[in-house]
Amino acid sequence: MTTETVNQINEEILNSPFLQELVRQIRAQDSYGFYRNWSNELLVKPYVISKEAKRKISVEGDVDPVTKARIMSFYRAIAAQIEQETGLISQVVIDLSHEGFGWALIFSGRLLLVARTLRDAQRFGFDSLEKLLAEGEKMTQKGIELAQKYTEVAKV
Amino acid sequence: MTTETVNQINEEILNSPFLQELVRQIRAQDSYGFYRNWSNELLVKPYVISKEAKRKISVEGDVDPVTKARIMSFYRAIAAQIEQETGLISQVVIDLSHEGFGWALIFSGRLLLVARTLRDAQRFGFDSLEKLLAEGEKMTQKGIELAQKYTEVAKV
Repeated sequence: MTTETVNQINEEILNSPFLQELVRQIRAQDSYGFYRNWSNELLVKPYVISKEAKRKISVEGDVDPVTKARIMSFYRAIAAQIEQETGLISQVVIDLSHEGFGWALIFSGRLLLVARTLRDAQRFGFDSLEKLLAEGEKMTQKGIELAQKYTEVAKV
Repeated sequence: MTTETVNQINEEILNSPFLQELVRQIRAQDSYGFYRNWSNELLVKPYVISKEAKRKISVEGDVDPVTKARIMSFYRAIAAQIEQETGLISQVVIDLSHEGFGWALIFSGRLLLVARTLRDAQRFGFDSLEKLLAEGEKMTQKGIELAQKYTEVAKV
């Protein structure tokens, strides 16, 4: 692929509803306007971490706050996308132990729309923007299906 | 009430299935045998905190690990009681922010059996053993009802 084609693909991914929502979630957390002049591409860049780079991140000790915020924004974007489709307001809970293990949960009423175990959360990231988009869309889709199938439980 | 009557009531409460389970959960966490020679009554005593005593506990800063473990044992006891009744294995997640706010969640499959917001978790406790028992039993009962009503969701 030429650089131009790569750029074009990235552009398409960045314009996808999921990535747009992710950017919105990141900017929503940016109370001090630190990222105000950053492009969307730059904002989502830290989500892409190569396998080699991952291996270099230590999994000893706490997950640092920036990584935690990144995980939160990712799951908040999924929650927002599910809400847009189903109208269900949901709650996002990221529970991480000191060793980087834990849960990412999105629930509405008594229904868990997303329930993911996290491990080595210090290394949270995706091989590429495509992978990030695919994962986000997959979880969103699954959540929507559950919400439609068990609407009653989501409204308890 | 005479001291004797009070003791008799406490004895009855301590022998209730919920309190017995709570004691079991506390002892299960006691890897170093620190509580081995403690009576059950002594073990559950820290769950009873008077309103005045609560007010004296600072809600600034982190919830201390001992209080966190106490909250965990309480919700694990509820999960175990629900399991005994319904056969559903569940997961307990206690998510606390640094300010003592957060969630206590018990879920099985995609069904939330218990979903409680926590606030001022530094002050977690009950007015009396009776109240502790009543709260524990109430949440257990509610969880069982949900599990029976939405069994399919709990088995997703």
